[in-house]
Amino acid sequence: MKKDFKVIAFDADDTLWVNEPNFRNLESDYCRLLSAYGPEEDISGALMKTEIKNLKLYGYGLKGFVLSMIETALHVSNHSIDQSVIAQIMDMGKELLQKPVELLDGVRPVLEKLQKQNYKLIVATKGDLLDQERKLAKSGLEKCFHHVEVMSDKKEDNYRKLLAHLDIEPRDFLMIGNSLKSDIIPVVGIGGYAVYVPYHITWALEEVEQPENLENFEEITHLGELLPLLGVE
Amino acid sequence: MKKDFKVIAFDADDTLWVNEPNFRNLESDYCRLLSAYGPEEDISGALMKTEIKNLKLYGYGLKGFVLSMIETALHVSNHSIDQSVIAQIMDMGKELLQKPVELLDGVRPVLEKLQKQNYKLIVATKGDLLDQERKLAKSGLEKCFHHVEVMSDKKEDNYRKLLAHLDIEPRDFLMIGNSLKSDIIPVVGIGGYAVYVPYHITWALEEVEQPENLENFEEITHLGELLPLLGVE
Repeated sequence: MKKDFKVIAFDADDTLWVNEPNFRNLESDYCRLLSAYGPEEDISGALMKTEIKNLKLYGYGLKGFVLSMIETALHVSNHSIDQSVIAQIMDMGKELLQKPVELLDGVRPVLEKLQKQNYKLIVATKGDLLDQERKLAKSGLEKCFHHVEVMSDKKEDNYRKLLAHLDIEPRDFLMIGNSLKSDIIPVVGIGGYAVYVPYHITWALEEVEQPENLENFEEITHLGELLPLLGVE
Repeated sequence: MKKDFKVIAFDADDTLWVNEPNFRNLESDYCRLLSAYGPEEDISGALMKTEIKNLKLYGYGLKGFVLSMIETALHVSNHSIDQSVIAQIMDMGKELLQKPVELLDGVRPVLEKLQKQNYKLIVATKGDLLDQERKLAKSGLEKCFHHVEVMSDKKEDNYRKLLAHLDIEPRDFLMIGNSLKSDIIPVVGIGGYAVYVPYHITWALEEVEQPENLENFEEITHLGELLPLLGVE
């Protein structure tokens, strides 16, 4: 892989720090709370349906997820859900917003070594702006990054806008992330470079088949492998 | 006022398009919906209290506002609010997210003339990223702007980060907006320039006394007056 990138962008959730397991825990607590209205599988399926329907309006992030949880609770209970359950759902959301950040293994030394090579490092993530800024601050990684780009989505057009905004060409851009759908395919699709670091669980809405013959693309099993790829010791 | 700015940033809500009147209408519909639990004034006061308490967690924007409306409804009704009212509150929020954008008078010609002078124009706004991007798309003004910066807050530190991100000095930055607290005072506080265009109503959380002897600051009554200030015909 080439090494002369002007900007290296890192996805945040499940690339720099633990996220999906927290959402899975929240969702299973939620299903338990609604167990009078159906088995976990059905409640979880109804929630996913609401989430997909609302995604265009609410976008990504925890606030929209909490609103979808409330909407689904009203729906599956036929508006009979106890009001205190709605309060509990909101409290669960607030709790997750305040949870400490758990860095993934090896993240800090990799970022520090790349920074010493004078790469301009940014975070490029979906989700709620304030929540992502807060997680970055709590992670202690703020000094490693030039800034955070919160993107409303991660499709080719969003990346085109990001590159225009950064005033760089696609060939000067490397994206690192755990989602083939959001971090890898659209980036190589517009002529950028991408490194895929799969995480052990993936949000259902991010799951996608890996296309054959992806160009300008590497897959690694651990972020530390990024350094030899870029010729950094 | 000097004229050689590298970036001119416009606040969005109530600077480019109508916003606060929509929130006021939403809030008065909400108070009517909860009228069994107190007069408008009390419900509105309770909502404001919840909003202020939640601001640190939720940040700005409609999704957090809807969550605060639900929380307040549960609180003022002592968890006895009818579940269908909660569904109505969420629907009212969705409706506002889908409302057409109403440009303020004279906005488009001012932006077009500034663009012809090769100023780099950006939108610098608080709120939900997706919502602001959508409003910009609906406004038809997208082509006038280099990009949108959604900021988690508009304090001095947030502007310092913005300028670092834009790679410019404060003296090369002009901010235009309707909030003394968010658009004007922090910008001149870090050495930038600001033009204040008051709107006829202001969100209570943005209200602040105008300090005396603000430097690098102009107040105009209509966005059109920006052009002569910058020597543009």
